[in-house]
Amino acid sequence: MIDQTLLPTEFREIDCWTVEGVWEAIKVLRVRGAPAIGVAAAYGVVVGLKDHRDDERSDFNAKLAEVVAYLASSRPTAVNLFWALDRMSSVALEHRSLSSAEVHESLFAEAKKIDAEDREMCTAIGQHGHHLLESGMGVLTHCNAGALATAGDGTALSVIFAAVAAGKSLRVYADETRPLLQGARLTAWELQQREIPVTVICDNMAAQVMKEGHIQAVVTGADRIAANGDAANKIGTYGVALLAKAHDIPFYVAAPSSTFDLSVAHGDHIPIEQRAREEISDGFGTQTVPAGVDVYNPAFDVTPASLISAIITEQGLISKPTTENVREHLKDCAVHGSSDHAR
Amino acid sequence: MIDQTLLPTEFREIDCWTVEGVWEAIKVLRVRGAPAIGVAAAYGVVVGLKDHRDDERSDFNAKLAEVVAYLASSRPTAVNLFWALDRMSSVALEHRSLSSAEVHESLFAEAKKIDAEDREMCTAIGQHGHHLLESGMGVLTHCNAGALATAGDGTALSVIFAAVAAGKSLRVYADETRPLLQGARLTAWELQQREIPVTVICDNMAAQVMKEGHIQAVVTGADRIAANGDAANKIGTYGVALLAKAHDIPFYVAAPSSTFDLSVAHGDHIPIEQRAREEISDGFGTQTVPAGVDVYNPAFDVTPASLISAIITEQGLISKPTTENVREHLKDCAVHGSSDHAR
Repeated sequence: MIDQTLLPTEFREIDCWTVEGVWEAIKVLRVRGAPAIGVAAAYGVVVGLKDHRDDERSDFNAKLAEVVAYLASSRPTAVNLFWALDRMSSVALEHRSLSSAEVHESLFAEAKKIDAEDREMCTAIGQHGHHLLESGMGVLTHCNAGALATAGDGTALSVIFAAVAAGKSLRVYADETRPLLQGARLTAWELQQREIPVTVICDNMAAQVMKEGHIQAVVTGADRIAANGDAANKIGTYGVALLAKAHDIPFYVAAPSSTFDLSVAHGDHIPIEQRAREEISDGFGTQTVPAGVDVYNPAFDVTPASLISAIITEQGLISKPTTENVREHLKDCAVHGSSDHAR
Repeated sequence: MIDQTLLPTEFREIDCWTVEGVWEAIKVLRVRGAPAIGVAAAYGVVVGLKDHRDDERSDFNAKLAEVVAYLASSRPTAVNLFWALDRMSSVALEHRSLSSAEVHESLFAEAKKIDAEDREMCTAIGQHGHHLLESGMGVLTHCNAGALATAGDGTALSVIFAAVAAGKSLRVYADETRPLLQGARLTAWELQQREIPVTVICDNMAAQVMKEGHIQAVVTGADRIAANGDAANKIGTYGVALLAKAHDIPFYVAAPSSTFDLSVAHGDHIPIEQRAREEISDGFGTQTVPAGVDVYNPAFDVTPASLISAIITEQGLISKPTTENVREHLKDCAVHGSSDHAR
């Protein structure tokens, strides 16, 4: 995987040959973005069991449960992590009579399938979403929901990539996204790689840029979406959604259907990861907060469905999301169709 | 003066014995905050003319005009800078028959008067404003409008200091205030010095902190206020005002009457300083934006009067500011009473 903590000044791909290495990569955001975390965790299960292919099945199953629980402890908010781990666990349950080595093969195949599906999902989101964007628009995005956040072309950025591929001319405004600056470091880097015009702003400049008329649409990703359409995403997204509403700018969320957690009725019940003080107080290699002063560092916030113009999934659009139209949208979906996935 | 660029890790007082040194200190924000800039510029005029006390009056006057124009070029938005320079110029006009040395004495006296008035102004703003705050409140502030921004106790922070002095218990939330982090570096430092509880957040966390119920009032400073009450302040203030409105939280602006520029009918006509790319792309010694990517860096935005619950001046409160009640409030004011100051 690309070590995203080193971008934009260094591009380095790293190998993770232990489950501890995968866990650490997720924890410290070497790999980040809800779909990418899911794919990484799936491969992490394969890596974590590679030395147990000759174990008894009961021992293999116990080790699998241990590896899954360990990887699930890396980050609490992105539901794709739990969704991918559930899929991996299900593979073992479905193949009770196979040997450990055979199950391990099936787990590897399932991880590759999750990976491939993620690529297809990104493409489909772009195809459904780009009709919302017109040539000449300025599009604001927050954090990074691009190729770096997925196995494919991204979610929010896939919409932009598809629009540009369709011949539309856009300018993207990227919130730098404190504290870890995924917008400045990653989104700007991805767009520059594809030669799409991008302007980086500080998070607190979004309102002014909207007021000046530079923004005609906002597109972000999501880390978990409740049954009613409330969407958890990188801290600051909720504020951007309020500012978009105040300026009559449509606010779109692009995310695969695996991002929905139908076991959560509304956004207030989504757990919000709290991260370390040092991300804010010592974020640039320089101490910027006096020693001993309190810092509050929630990694996510929840944008209420009422502020979301549409959710773009790989299956199409959910305009003005509600519990009813979310359920209708997902009813034929492999992830959610038969019954809600529990965890 | 305190070199504010070194805080919070180093407290260093510097002397500026040349007008170029004063200009540079204003330009690079060693001294910042609209009232403090005004005081610094007034002393800068004295410093800039100290070697011209034996000049002919006509030469002295020409040099004065040159020094004033030079200092006025340091930063474009804070009106207190121009207001202080106007006062200094007026001193020379009023004393046409005096010698250059005598006028220089008068200029020094005027600078000391501006300084002393600023201290009194801060105290009066605190006294008028603290009645808006109740014990137990969480108060959000943006940037630094404290003692570091003035000759006295500050504007927004003077309100907080006065409330605490009156026995009220408050917790202050300080937006870190990208790109130069005046909230994290300066506001947090000032509050910690006075043992007032303070929590630093990233700018993009303000909406979430409001949603969680931690904020009962917002108080900020201002760099220039138009005749209708529209207030220019540090970039991000306008966004905070919109978020406060969305959460039904009162939004107060604390500023001396010298901050009003009655020659500007409304906020759209206030010039907004654009600052260097590097403040965002290379903040604090680390490159965080890919080379070659565009950056937009407006230093200020304008909060429309309709979002301001009250403006707190040294003369009292202007509730729900309009052109009419701003004019009424300022009619007996020495700065604005007889005629609008032009520049």
